[in-house]
Amino acid sequence: MSVSKNQSTIFPKGEPAPADYFVGKAWVKFLVQSDDTFNTSIGNVVFEPGARNNWHKHGGGQILIVTDGEGYYQEKGKPIQIIRKGDVIKILPGVKHWHGASRDHEMTHIAVNTNTQKGIVEWLEQVTDEEYNALK
Amino acid sequence: MSVSKNQSTIFPKGEPAPADYFVGKAWVKFLVQSDDTFNTSIGNVVFEPGARNNWHKHGGGQILIVTDGEGYYQEKGKPIQIIRKGDVIKILPGVKHWHGASRDHEMTHIAVNTNTQKGIVEWLEQVTDEEYNALK
Repeated sequence: MSVSKNQSTIFPKGEPAPADYFVGKAWVKFLVQSDDTFNTSIGNVVFEPGARNNWHKHGGGQILIVTDGEGYYQEKGKPIQIIRKGDVIKILPGVKHWHGASRDHEMTHIAVNTNTQKGIVEWLEQVTDEEYNALK
Repeated sequence: MSVSKNQSTIFPKGEPAPADYFVGKAWVKFLVQSDDTFNTSIGNVVFEPGARNNWHKHGGGQILIVTDGEGYYQEKGKPIQIIRKGDVIKILPGVKHWHGASRDHEMTHIAVNTNTQKGIVEWLEQVTDEEYNALK
């Protein structure tokens, strides 16, 4: 049986990610909008190679579930970590961080924002090319 | 490029689901255990055709993200709904319900338990064959 790459995609790509908060091309599909019952928002994000979001923080924390490809995750003051399909990343409230694709691969993750009653996201400055390319 | 079905699986199957709370064969891989910071638990569940969990309720609500296959979802007093890859189901706190595979297909979902400080799960009676087969 032959299965092409696109057929294995779980969600449609969605909308282009806002250029104010991303470097490079990424796509966001909102799955769950936050409300007072679930206190949770969920989105699917596809990053093309080299794309990443800005430095940012979550008031209520965030959990990333990598569903395809290979990417990078970095918390301020720590080295870049490589993340891959099947990895789950727990990001504590208030921790400054960014995530994105690796240089040579797309990366898709489901982002679960938890405890949204405590704040969803605070966007900060871009991840520079120097920061992004710091992984040797 | 040829990709076999197993290579597209995001997570390992995990452990057999507890027979006390399931009918048929299912597999559970815990991804995030609940704690006081995230108030969220996440698990990946694979149901073989015909398998389903018991009727149950979530004190803090639950969100299902179907990542593969086709299955059924039912709330007490309502008809069975067919759910498929890419579907997202929001289950309100306290609503009695069950989910599982369809008769002829496997179904895989990520289950996100929200607001776990209000309770994770209350297991109830089995879904009988008559209830399961009610979908014509």
